Amino acid sequence: MKTLNIDLGHHSYPIHIGKGIMSNSDLIRPHIHGQQVFVISNEIVAPLYLERLLAALGDHYVIATHILPDGEQTKSLTHAEAVFTKMLELPCDRGVTVIALGGGVVGDLAGFCAACYQRGVKFIQVPTTLLSQVDSSVGGKTGVNHPLGKNMIGAFHQPEVVIIDNQTLDSLDARQFSAGLAEVIKYALLGDIQFLGWLEENMPAIVQRDESAISEIIERSCRAKSHIVAQDEKEQGVRALLNLGHTFGHAIENAKGYGVWLHGEAVGLGMLMAADLSHRIGMISAADVERVGDILAAAALPVKGVADVDASHLRALMSVDKKVMAGKLRLVLYRSLGEAEIFDTVPEAQIMETLERYTL
Amino acid sequence: MKTLNIDLGHHSYPIHIGKGIMSNSDLIRPHIHGQQVFVISNEIVAPLYLERLLAALGDHYVIATHILPDGEQTKSLTHAEAVFTKMLELPCDRGVTVIALGGGVVGDLAGFCAACYQRGVKFIQVPTTLLSQVDSSVGGKTGVNHPLGKNMIGAFHQPEVVIIDNQTLDSLDARQFSAGLAEVIKYALLGDIQFLGWLEENMPAIVQRDESAISEIIERSCRAKSHIVAQDEKEQGVRALLNLGHTFGHAIENAKGYGVWLHGEAVGLGMLMAADLSHRIGMISAADVERVGDILAAAALPVKGVADVDASHLRALMSVDKKVMAGKLRLVLYRSLGEAEIFDTVPEAQIMETLERYTL
Repeated sequence: MKTLNIDLGHHSYPIHIGKGIMSNSDLIRPHIHGQQVFVISNEIVAPLYLERLLAALGDHYVIATHILPDGEQTKSLTHAEAVFTKMLELPCDRGVTVIALGGGVVGDLAGFCAACYQRGVKFIQVPTTLLSQVDSSVGGKTGVNHPLGKNMIGAFHQPEVVIIDNQTLDSLDARQFSAGLAEVIKYALLGDIQFLGWLEENMPAIVQRDESAISEIIERSCRAKSHIVAQDEKEQGVRALLNLGHTFGHAIENAKGYGVWLHGEAVGLGMLMAADLSHRIGMISAADVERVGDILAAAALPVKGVADVDASHLRALMSVDKKVMAGKLRLVLYRSLGEAEIFDTVPEAQIMETLERYTL
Repeated sequence: MKTLNIDLGHHSYPIHIGKGIMSNSDLIRPHIHGQQVFVISNEIVAPLYLERLLAALGDHYVIATHILPDGEQTKSLTHAEAVFTKMLELPCDRGVTVIALGGGVVGDLAGFCAACYQRGVKFIQVPTTLLSQVDSSVGGKTGVNHPLGKNMIGAFHQPEVVIIDNQTLDSLDARQFSAGLAEVIKYALLGDIQFLGWLEENMPAIVQRDESAISEIIERSCRAKSHIVAQDEKEQGVRALLNLGHTFGHAIENAKGYGVWLHGEAVGLGMLMAADLSHRIGMISAADVERVGDILAAAALPVKGVADVDASHLRALMSVDKKVMAGKLRLVLYRSLGEAEIFDTVPEAQIMETLERYTL
């Protein structure tokens, strides 16, 4: 097992990574201080892992569980309200610890509920998808979607501990696994060109679910993200680089209807679109764009484009993204490959060319 | 004009108190950093003061307004969602400043929306009722009610500045004014016996809306509250004393249906019930209980009891209050008059006697 410490001053917490560690009660119990535990999971994950988690908790707590439907549609204010209702019916008190057992949707919704229930209760993440293990479980972003935009309602709420049991990846389907790889590739593309080389070499082993390769990508990704988050907890500056591919990606998810494209798939294509646009405004070479496309394709991510969506519709959706400031579109692009930067004066013409290029 | 500085480290902010200061653009404009302003008010307050506030803002910003219905029922997740929708339709970006112009309901809801919109945007309070001026505008508590309990969904979100224009009290009806006085009396009862003496002497002038007496109670109340909040921003300890009268009070509000009893009215009776209970368990004298009843009556607050509600129903509602920890009822009672303390081992029999005594 490996442990990373996310250092955010008074909000610091450990991330444990290892095979089968969900069953280890010594990792989770020291972080539960009250008598009540409220576990939030979903209909896919609960049958696979809930029993294991409950066994680790033992009979030391009053435990309630809430099982959500699967899918991005679950990440709504309506589902959050249902969680609040169940917690109040029990009732859960302020000393309750909320545990999220599942992927990013479960973690974001559960974290938001923990942030807002009685103005904040303790929270533990047990992420079970590659995407949530390398991305959403690090950094304290929680939230739900609004019909007009993804993650528009939310809070920063740091967990007490994150337990990443990479055995849970064994049950992950290929599409979800690839979606998670998009965020892994993102850390390479935005700031670690050496890691990109390593990924190019090891992608065949990774997609074969080679255990040591997977351990390596989880650890490197968490470390990269935690390094950035520690510098900028509330996204005032450098943390915005983590949005590489996301302004395009959110527009794609929104245009297709949440859940049709997986978040990671949309971000993957978004990173390629960012590369294409960076090339159009003269910052990276055509070969660099190809290299981005190749690593995404090697991870079995879609690189051709998005069908049945209008470029101008995507453009309009990009303007409601959180990265917009004072009406100005702020895009994370590549200064060079492996070095992302925020740009807020990209010419509209080139943006539209990129959008046209990747709408089918 | 007087200015108090609320010192919460990186969350510090000033409270300005004075007559007619809402029109002073020098007080508000330095706290608005983006180009967008989103003003939330209600149908009662907006016709009276919105124009004045907008004049102070001038033509320096893109300004949108959202007018809520009046009443405690407005403080719901449904109304918060409507605010999010409007903000997204504009769309407001992350640099937007939300301004709450109104009483506690407007402030709590607007503050919650500011806390959660895109995971937090800037927020300014312009409280227009006595209650919100002496209580909810200080301390950063925001939130909405849930059908199963008051303020159950919320966040801590500190404003950039609080502008208390006590001219707005001229338009406040007598019942709302008295409700505000309940929270003023609370600061005396929980920790300042000298202030209680001062209030006993000056209550006739206060209810006549004597300007200097009102200035004095607002300043003393904000100072008392800010002193407590500065010690304990997130209510881990001493801040809980501010809940004097609130566990009883919330149960009354809930039992009667939100809005039937005003919050201050319910808290006033709750403080009297706390006195009665403190007497029953031998901490204060019968004369002390009478003194509490007298000052509340002098402020034209209800002291007889609550009609058409069952004592056991109130008791059940008290158990879903946020102050409950691990199933144990935690009550703020009087160690002596002017000295509140948290008790979590109050015998059920005496609690029920107090509830019986104040249900009619």
